[in-house]
Amino acid sequence: MALVIVSRVHPSSDVWAPEMRRLMPEIDVRYWPDVGNPDEVDAVLMWQAPDGLFDRLPKLKAIFATGAGVDAILGDASVPKHLPLARLVDPSMTAEMSEYVTLQVLRFHRQEPTYAAQQRDRVWKVHPQPHPEQRRIGVMGLGELGQDALGKLAPFGFALGGWSRTPKALEGVETFSGSDGFARFLARTDILVNLLPLTAETENIIDARLLGQLPEGAFLVNCARGRHVVDDDLLAALDSGRLAGAALDVFREEPLPADHRFWSHPRVILTPHAAALTNPLTATPQIVENLRRVQAGQPLVNLVDRSRGY
Amino acid sequence: MALVIVSRVHPSSDVWAPEMRRLMPEIDVRYWPDVGNPDEVDAVLMWQAPDGLFDRLPKLKAIFATGAGVDAILGDASVPKHLPLARLVDPSMTAEMSEYVTLQVLRFHRQEPTYAAQQRDRVWKVHPQPHPEQRRIGVMGLGELGQDALGKLAPFGFALGGWSRTPKALEGVETFSGSDGFARFLARTDILVNLLPLTAETENIIDARLLGQLPEGAFLVNCARGRHVVDDDLLAALDSGRLAGAALDVFREEPLPADHRFWSHPRVILTPHAAALTNPLTATPQIVENLRRVQAGQPLVNLVDRSRGY
Repeated sequence: MALVIVSRVHPSSDVWAPEMRRLMPEIDVRYWPDVGNPDEVDAVLMWQAPDGLFDRLPKLKAIFATGAGVDAILGDASVPKHLPLARLVDPSMTAEMSEYVTLQVLRFHRQEPTYAAQQRDRVWKVHPQPHPEQRRIGVMGLGELGQDALGKLAPFGFALGGWSRTPKALEGVETFSGSDGFARFLARTDILVNLLPLTAETENIIDARLLGQLPEGAFLVNCARGRHVVDDDLLAALDSGRLAGAALDVFREEPLPADHRFWSHPRVILTPHAAALTNPLTATPQIVENLRRVQAGQPLVNLVDRSRGY
Repeated sequence: MALVIVSRVHPSSDVWAPEMRRLMPEIDVRYWPDVGNPDEVDAVLMWQAPDGLFDRLPKLKAIFATGAGVDAILGDASVPKHLPLARLVDPSMTAEMSEYVTLQVLRFHRQEPTYAAQQRDRVWKVHPQPHPEQRRIGVMGLGELGQDALGKLAPFGFALGGWSRTPKALEGVETFSGSDGFARFLARTDILVNLLPLTAETENIIDARLLGQLPEGAFLVNCARGRHVVDDDLLAALDSGRLAGAALDVFREEPLPADHRFWSHPRVILTPHAAALTNPLTATPQIVENLRRVQAGQPLVNLVDRSRGY
């Protein structure tokens, strides 16, 4: 049984293989494009498929993604539809995402952009501070990431809300679901956090219509995918001040082109897709578990449902 | 029984009196300088004493501070030493302080100053992110505020430490005490949070000596008092880069003079003493409790020990 790793890091400094061999000494790990005897390769670990990968590995039984979002793999026509695909639920990545969400929520809650502007202008002025129970946070997407972020926000006493495709009950969170609940969810959300998977239904979901349903002066935190956002609609809402601020970690085109207006918009806080990075040390146990399942002919953990897109 | 309130807010818009009357209908609330018959006044609620206050109120039995830190009152020679003084432990103010601490700790932890500079320069570059268990937070002062802040930081998985004058045991926190434990506490602290009371012993505690004992590249969060800091020593540590950043909410002189170097220092994040504001709605129950204790001749809650200074 062999696993092929597709990595941008040189094999000599890659962390995946040594950790994999430590936890599963019998595994034969190979780095693309040195696949050895292709008939021995059962699984591939990858973010995006290089040209010709699937032609060269005819006996492949499973694909393991190195990230939580698999939209890039599902959108690639070269990826065989019959192969089971597992996305990564890495506890360290989940924790990093919640750090990022909490940081951006607290920045907007504590009026940090206002105080940063005052520091630039040497203005000493205290503003009334809304109490956390008056600040309505709304998280779109209530999977692993959304639930963990809400759990980290809960101790601060915010008014928590959540929206998902199918109904979910979460303690201490006012939940909404489906298209019926969407307008009511948006109308009660002062800080909107997007943690949705990117699917045909969620692409372009953050558009003029959505932004118009948020209360005046709301904030957006997007750490899911750039293609969730209609950039021109977001810029228009920020220009008018209807949306008071946006923290953006992901973009339609990455790296974000140097002439994009997001870079210099006074209401935009921008990070280079750095909110949550996969950590091979904490992610490898799940890969090993799935390799054993491939061996035993069992269904994968965190298997992607291609019909719903995540 | 009457209470005199010293407030910078006009009585018509002040929140203290209506809330006080709601919780204790028998109380006679008066606003300085309209004290009425001074012989009826048992207690005063104030931040700083106006000139002549104590001469005009000879029957005073207690002083209630509107803040957690009472250094301004203890340092005022006009305040009679025999009067019991209660500081305020306002749950809402404590929660705000912990929001501020968590926000600034997460900013430094997530390398926000680096990413903010990159946004200004349109640079797309991801930096390795230290894991929270590798980030050693150290809180100076383990009273109400310090303990609450540590409780809010705990779910993120940081390596938590704390230092206090007298030994304290806190679950999940490596605690140090006294002058013996101070050097060891500083040597293991990547992000130092100051929540100490200002006393004769703690004035100027953040000086070149303390800053030199922190690891290279540490960060400082000061939301206690400006007089804890020797400004020139802090600026020197920031200039050299030995200290990688400082979030400062309090200053020796407030408002901070317009020509002070803190305003424009690239490694300083500055807020105008806005970390935690007293909320009369949540603070009044404690004042009412103490009024009843004055009436019954019982000791005050949150009584200040003048010998230790807090």
